[in-house]
Amino acid sequence: MKNLVILGSTGSIGRQTLDVVRAFPDRFRILGLAAGNNRRLLARQIAEFRPVLVSSFSSIELPRGTRSASLEEMAADARADLVVVATAGKAGLYPTLTALKAGKDVALANKEALVMAGEMVMAEAKKHRVAIRPVDSEHSAVWQCLNGEKSRPKRLTLTASGGPFYRYSASRLAAVTPQQALKHPTWKMGRKVTIDSATLMNKGLEVIEAHWLFGMPAEDIGVVVHPQSIVHALVEFADGSVKAQMAVPDMRLPIQYALTYPERLPNAALPALDLASIGTLSFEPPDLERFPCLKLALSATLAGGTHPAVLCAADEVAVDWFLKGRIAFTDISSVVYSVLKQHEGVAHPSLEEILATDEWARQVAVQAVKEACR
Amino acid sequence: MKNLVILGSTGSIGRQTLDVVRAFPDRFRILGLAAGNNRRLLARQIAEFRPVLVSSFSSIELPRGTRSASLEEMAADARADLVVVATAGKAGLYPTLTALKAGKDVALANKEALVMAGEMVMAEAKKHRVAIRPVDSEHSAVWQCLNGEKSRPKRLTLTASGGPFYRYSASRLAAVTPQQALKHPTWKMGRKVTIDSATLMNKGLEVIEAHWLFGMPAEDIGVVVHPQSIVHALVEFADGSVKAQMAVPDMRLPIQYALTYPERLPNAALPALDLASIGTLSFEPPDLERFPCLKLALSATLAGGTHPAVLCAADEVAVDWFLKGRIAFTDISSVVYSVLKQHEGVAHPSLEEILATDEWARQVAVQAVKEACR
Repeated sequence: MKNLVILGSTGSIGRQTLDVVRAFPDRFRILGLAAGNNRRLLARQIAEFRPVLVSSFSSIELPRGTRSASLEEMAADARADLVVVATAGKAGLYPTLTALKAGKDVALANKEALVMAGEMVMAEAKKHRVAIRPVDSEHSAVWQCLNGEKSRPKRLTLTASGGPFYRYSASRLAAVTPQQALKHPTWKMGRKVTIDSATLMNKGLEVIEAHWLFGMPAEDIGVVVHPQSIVHALVEFADGSVKAQMAVPDMRLPIQYALTYPERLPNAALPALDLASIGTLSFEPPDLERFPCLKLALSATLAGGTHPAVLCAADEVAVDWFLKGRIAFTDISSVVYSVLKQHEGVAHPSLEEILATDEWARQVAVQAVKEACR
Repeated sequence: MKNLVILGSTGSIGRQTLDVVRAFPDRFRILGLAAGNNRRLLARQIAEFRPVLVSSFSSIELPRGTRSASLEEMAADARADLVVVATAGKAGLYPTLTALKAGKDVALANKEALVMAGEMVMAEAKKHRVAIRPVDSEHSAVWQCLNGEKSRPKRLTLTASGGPFYRYSASRLAAVTPQQALKHPTWKMGRKVTIDSATLMNKGLEVIEAHWLFGMPAEDIGVVVHPQSIVHALVEFADGSVKAQMAVPDMRLPIQYALTYPERLPNAALPALDLASIGTLSFEPPDLERFPCLKLALSATLAGGTHPAVLCAADEVAVDWFLKGRIAFTDISSVVYSVLKQHEGVAHPSLEEILATDEWARQVAVQAVKEACR
């Protein structure tokens, strides 16, 4: 019986994590749930899973045996075996560090922790001898392919569906609306990550995560566009052999793997892959001209230091304004580029430097956004 | 420094094994070489690798420090670390058993050992706690995908290129000549295996091998036609996750992996895979009506006992007569079917029973071939 803490339980990954927990009532017990403003769903989750600890932005009535706690308290609770960090944005960074420092394995679905503070996060994991289990399908795929391999891989390749607009011309891209962008062809995800998928920024953030998670130089991580989203990542080894992990796109699979690793458990709810009926898998190099966000992310990875944090913060601001209908789809990359251009990086930044950079980048991004509005 | 014995050194796999050895002069030493009638090539190999032991069908002059030995003596030599069994046909069975009984790991490229006597071969490997390392690209792929996995796989899928005639109609298939059949679209292999690839019998024999190598029930092993020969096999796990191994078709890769396992070594001679430039991987279910050899092999696997040995012997006779231009391409399956139909199987056969079955099947196959000639 494994005690789980789920931070961000009402979000897309949080809900799907609870789906997996529901499928294995003998394996997992929910020790803590933390959520933001979705009070109604959180109340239902509390009634169903009876957690000992609950953290919520909004006040919520708790049943007997359940008490209120902070994210950090929950992440460090002595009874916790695995902390699932599924909160969006930089809110995921502190509890991730807290859990690692408390010696807890972390199933990490939050991108910002690694993108903003990958060096620090990995150092804490190493120091406290705990594992960061990736929840993203691409990183889970790499992790699965590295299983049992003694030799260092030569190259990682993350696949990108290309998003809904991959065949759009530059002028059509400029006219994309938030409603169109929120319809992802193959994955069901949250709003921010769906837009990031459409700009390919998401793939860029994943390259940064992979760089830290697997200790691979940025130049040895590639991206290939694969519209069917069946192959999630590929790992090339020293001898030229390539291993790939495939599955019908369903986040519950990587979530379950992070929860049950090193075991694999049958789950009838997960779809089976039938390649012969899918027929064709296609691959092509990404178009960095029409999708400059990916290029910006690759440059930020190579630049290192605080650059990824700037990328991340500027993108969050830009996507927010795009979703509000204030800037164009193609302005997202312009805003991010403009902020990155103004940034003087700090190498091996401290947490304070990272957070100060984040603040700075958001302010500069808002200015850039306002200029784009004009 | 690993001491290798290579049985079948002048054949396709033997020569490519020596290519790999050439690439790693600090890793491998050739202890023994055994070959059939290609005296000239064997003499060159002896001059280059200076083996201690040589076995040859034809008389050959040996340099000082090299002496003649039998296959069995070589396979059991105390100095041998790994025995590469690359002899074709049932000649591979005895030395495989000898090597296993002598406690040697075996890199197995010979199909007949497992197809004819899989139960016995695996029992000997288990008894003497030695490993059988597959050399076939498909089995190597499965082996690589199983690396580090704790849970039993749910399903194995071997890929088949489909051979040069996969799009041929039944009537066009009947008119295929040996010259046409010897041109394989993606793999460079020996004559017998090239014809077996064109009939898909080869894939059927590989299903039988996989059944024994990985202890998988025959019904959990599938075949998918994949004309590009980039994905060599796929392994589906309990949770629905699928791992695949990919590489540009080149037998030196699985050979090298069998030699260096668990390490992977860089080898500039091995081609790199660039999926984005390949573009498309396609998959379709095999057509068992136009390629009945695969269906016969699957039935023989399910029937078990001596049936696979019958399949194997009858196919060898039929392919031989096809290559001599005496029977049609489509007669190969008819001959095999006719022999299998007349066979009364023996469960858990002894070596004597297997060899007697082989003899019987060859005689009956010759009769069937003669009928087909009429």
